[in-house]
Amino acid sequence: MTEAVSWIAVDWGTTHLRAYAMSEVNVVLAEAQSTDGMAALQTGEFETALIALISEWLPNSGRILVLACGMVGARQGWVEATYRTVPCSLSSGLDLTRVTTQDDRLEVRILPGICQTNPADVMRGEETQIAGLLAEQGDGITTVCLPGTHSKWASLNKGYIQSFSTFMTGELFALLSTQSILCHSVTTDDWDEHAFLLAVSEGVEQPDMLLSSSFRIRAQSLLGETAEATARARLSGLLIGSELAGAKDYWSQQSVALIGDTALSALYEKALDALDVETQIYDPKDMTVAGLRQQAQHLINPEE
Amino acid sequence: MTEAVSWIAVDWGTTHLRAYAMSEVNVVLAEAQSTDGMAALQTGEFETALIALISEWLPNSGRILVLACGMVGARQGWVEATYRTVPCSLSSGLDLTRVTTQDDRLEVRILPGICQTNPADVMRGEETQIAGLLAEQGDGITTVCLPGTHSKWASLNKGYIQSFSTFMTGELFALLSTQSILCHSVTTDDWDEHAFLLAVSEGVEQPDMLLSSSFRIRAQSLLGETAEATARARLSGLLIGSELAGAKDYWSQQSVALIGDTALSALYEKALDALDVETQIYDPKDMTVAGLRQQAQHLINPEE
Repeated sequence: MTEAVSWIAVDWGTTHLRAYAMSEVNVVLAEAQSTDGMAALQTGEFETALIALISEWLPNSGRILVLACGMVGARQGWVEATYRTVPCSLSSGLDLTRVTTQDDRLEVRILPGICQTNPADVMRGEETQIAGLLAEQGDGITTVCLPGTHSKWASLNKGYIQSFSTFMTGELFALLSTQSILCHSVTTDDWDEHAFLLAVSEGVEQPDMLLSSSFRIRAQSLLGETAEATARARLSGLLIGSELAGAKDYWSQQSVALIGDTALSALYEKALDALDVETQIYDPKDMTVAGLRQQAQHLINPEE
Repeated sequence: MTEAVSWIAVDWGTTHLRAYAMSEVNVVLAEAQSTDGMAALQTGEFETALIALISEWLPNSGRILVLACGMVGARQGWVEATYRTVPCSLSSGLDLTRVTTQDDRLEVRILPGICQTNPADVMRGEETQIAGLLAEQGDGITTVCLPGTHSKWASLNKGYIQSFSTFMTGELFALLSTQSILCHSVTTDDWDEHAFLLAVSEGVEQPDMLLSSSFRIRAQSLLGETAEATARARLSGLLIGSELAGAKDYWSQQSVALIGDTALSALYEKALDALDVETQIYDPKDMTVAGLRQQAQHLINPEE
């Protein structure tokens, strides 16, 4: 790198650690990632994992700001960061949690998560992606969905997050497809698009049958009625359909901004399209960097 | 044993093997069990596992009937037994699958399972318990629920099984409470009865929120709002409530015969009582023996 690194943006989740070397004008100069997510580390191992990833970017003298979001701020993370309670603004200067480090070149701060009291819910990391989305796209966006292990739906209004709901859709798909009786029926990576869309519709219309319709996948397989590609797509469709049934208040009158990995966002896009809901897909990495950049600007140039 | 063993009843499921030495007048003379369930055995190991359990009951000369039901007849079992298709009678002589054994003292036969084509569903073992229930209690029973890893609901009419539905409730509880993010919140064995009943009601009324309300258990725990006994009871209640929502056609106009282990049947009894549904609990072991006895009578005294 010829240009100087001004600060470092860090997206530190349960299973991943991603870092971005940022220039003074907030361009990404370099990026690095590892599997040293929060769940893989014990207390006391976080600083070592971070330095292993970013040592080349550290200054010869002085401190550099490292701004991190995600599960690194959870109770089992590096240092527990606060939660802000909805409704709350996503753009104003946040109450960052300062981390004491042994290496005095580091000035590490962790962004707060967001919580909701009724019904109880929490997020760490997704709020930064939503803040990045609003910073990039403006305050006109009213509904955002972040599909994943724990999918989040959030309702936005003029830069505020009003309310949100988490669905364990991705985690349940992983458990059912690898640890349950269904694992025998869904070992393939092939995909049956038609079966997926039928199952989404079934899941949206009959969410009360989820525990039964998922077993039906096994029965169909035993009775020789279905291919594995169909079974896998059906399981995914039933679960996403059930999520969409529960999240109906979020999407029924609104277009939806999707922030998630390419393949999964494409599934949600197709499922929502079948319900006549417009979607727009945004890259999660770009949104995280944009959200962290916004906070960094407050710290580095507080007058802006 | 002083009295002679006339035949041997075997309940052979996924995780258990239970055998009963039966007298000529169908009294249980002795019983034995092991953990050599279908899932623990490779092809070729079934005969050895059976003899290890029942060797003391085998005759010095001649053959003895061993009548088995359950997952032993599955594709991954000893020998694949047939399925009968609903609607079908539970009392008439069945098409038993004969197993060739190396030990010529054994005359092993496996009962068929039952399948349904639309919607696809299967059972192996539960049909024998239902047959035992009807043999003991008469044909007046119209709805039976067998709670467990894969809960079954069946609609009966004059000795026929008309239709049935499987729900993955028990398996999902096991996965979510031990393998998911919720495992941190439900490590206790304590129980909050009030929270259970509230969650049943929530599950029945809002089955579309299952993937979200289950995550809420984790959020409540993180926000310090809930004890572990409450969290565990809530998870169980939400899942059973979701099952009851899906099974509503079975119980909405009928009293329900419950066949399941004592603790689990008691939960279903309480959940159904809160919905003003009458229940009667039957012992699963007694029902299995009664169902196998009925078939043995056809074989030993076909004129009856």
